[in-house]
Amino acid sequence: MISDHDWVQRKLGYSFRDVSLLDAALTHRSSGSRHNERLEFLGDSLLNFVIAHELFLRSPRADEGDLSRLRASLVRGVTLAEIAKSLGLGDQLKLGSGELKSGGYRRESILADALEAVFGAVLLDGGPEAASRMVLELYAGRLDNLPDPEHLKDPKTRLQEWLQSKNISLPDYIVDDVQGAAHNQRFIVSCRVDSLNLHTTGQGTSRRKAEQASATSMLEKLTSE
Amino acid sequence: MISDHDWVQRKLGYSFRDVSLLDAALTHRSSGSRHNERLEFLGDSLLNFVIAHELFLRSPRADEGDLSRLRASLVRGVTLAEIAKSLGLGDQLKLGSGELKSGGYRRESILADALEAVFGAVLLDGGPEAASRMVLELYAGRLDNLPDPEHLKDPKTRLQEWLQSKNISLPDYIVDDVQGAAHNQRFIVSCRVDSLNLHTTGQGTSRRKAEQASATSMLEKLTSE
Repeated sequence: MISDHDWVQRKLGYSFRDVSLLDAALTHRSSGSRHNERLEFLGDSLLNFVIAHELFLRSPRADEGDLSRLRASLVRGVTLAEIAKSLGLGDQLKLGSGELKSGGYRRESILADALEAVFGAVLLDGGPEAASRMVLELYAGRLDNLPDPEHLKDPKTRLQEWLQSKNISLPDYIVDDVQGAAHNQRFIVSCRVDSLNLHTTGQGTSRRKAEQASATSMLEKLTSE
Repeated sequence: MISDHDWVQRKLGYSFRDVSLLDAALTHRSSGSRHNERLEFLGDSLLNFVIAHELFLRSPRADEGDLSRLRASLVRGVTLAEIAKSLGLGDQLKLGSGELKSGGYRRESILADALEAVFGAVLLDGGPEAASRMVLELYAGRLDNLPDPEHLKDPKTRLQEWLQSKNISLPDYIVDDVQGAAHNQRFIVSCRVDSLNLHTTGQGTSRRKAEQASATSMLEKLTSE
């Protein structure tokens, strides 16, 4: 295992003045009192801003909804964890023994949070420009290959837009049933397009998820006909 | 009505190089094709970052949850609309005739969005430092008088912490009933603390709101006893 300092220099091209900031960024709360949760909060807000700004400049024709969806796809935990893995960040993490034994260094949320905390630490150590530069370098490939924002829309939105484009009135979502005990509830929702006399149902652990599932079924029904 | 340019100079101490950016920031989508929604997206992300950074520096003992709650209270629409009103921003807005007649210039969400768009416009026109300075000046009084983060916690969180502090097992929330037609549903939720043999109920237009209402009743019951 290389030292934190060598790692961040080699992988991120950055030299910390105050190495204790980097130490804190790489310390999970299971391992020490000076852990990375405050830095994660700070780094998360920097990341959101830098990506929003860059998307705004790169996508002059994207509307606000497209920009939001593109940003969400870039800053979500799965994406951050991928970047963290590519940097070998897991090997640098300081975890408590419980987390270590349970393989916590591979857990995506821990990796994602630690990478955000590193951004926060660079912001404090080197200022906003240094931190922005690091974010943009790590995201360069993804920013050059942005997905089509249309594909990032959720099923309810896609269904609504499909119906509107055909001048069909919008669907109703109705909670038909809530089953199971607390903490383990199951929502059954139906999606109805009354003017076409069609309905589908969906299930999920939340009302929202059940609605999305019912909208997916409705979209399939409509576009396969 | 003073010109946009005079207004922003007098009220915000900023002179735009490119006045068309300010124009776009003050244009609601009801009034023109070059409207403020993209700038609002940009300004919102800047605002979140600047406030997060400032709270981090000012509140060295606040944990991540406290920082999140403090930020949410500062960047929410109500607060932004208060600031916008104090600047007389409503008189500068360009609204379509429909919004104008319905008194849209007083609508809080329209004011809040336009203020965020102004932050975005300053970012593009004068760079991150100029935009950060403007945000911090407008928020100076509020940052000097931060609320106690404890008071910003939602009822479910406060109930959970109250029970944990007394080593009482956590409550269950159960959806007892969902009434009414789609778009107008009413959730009835009960909050149960089985070990104390207590339960309360709450209602709301979403499951979350109904749970919070039931937690509020439970807290009142527990702390009045």
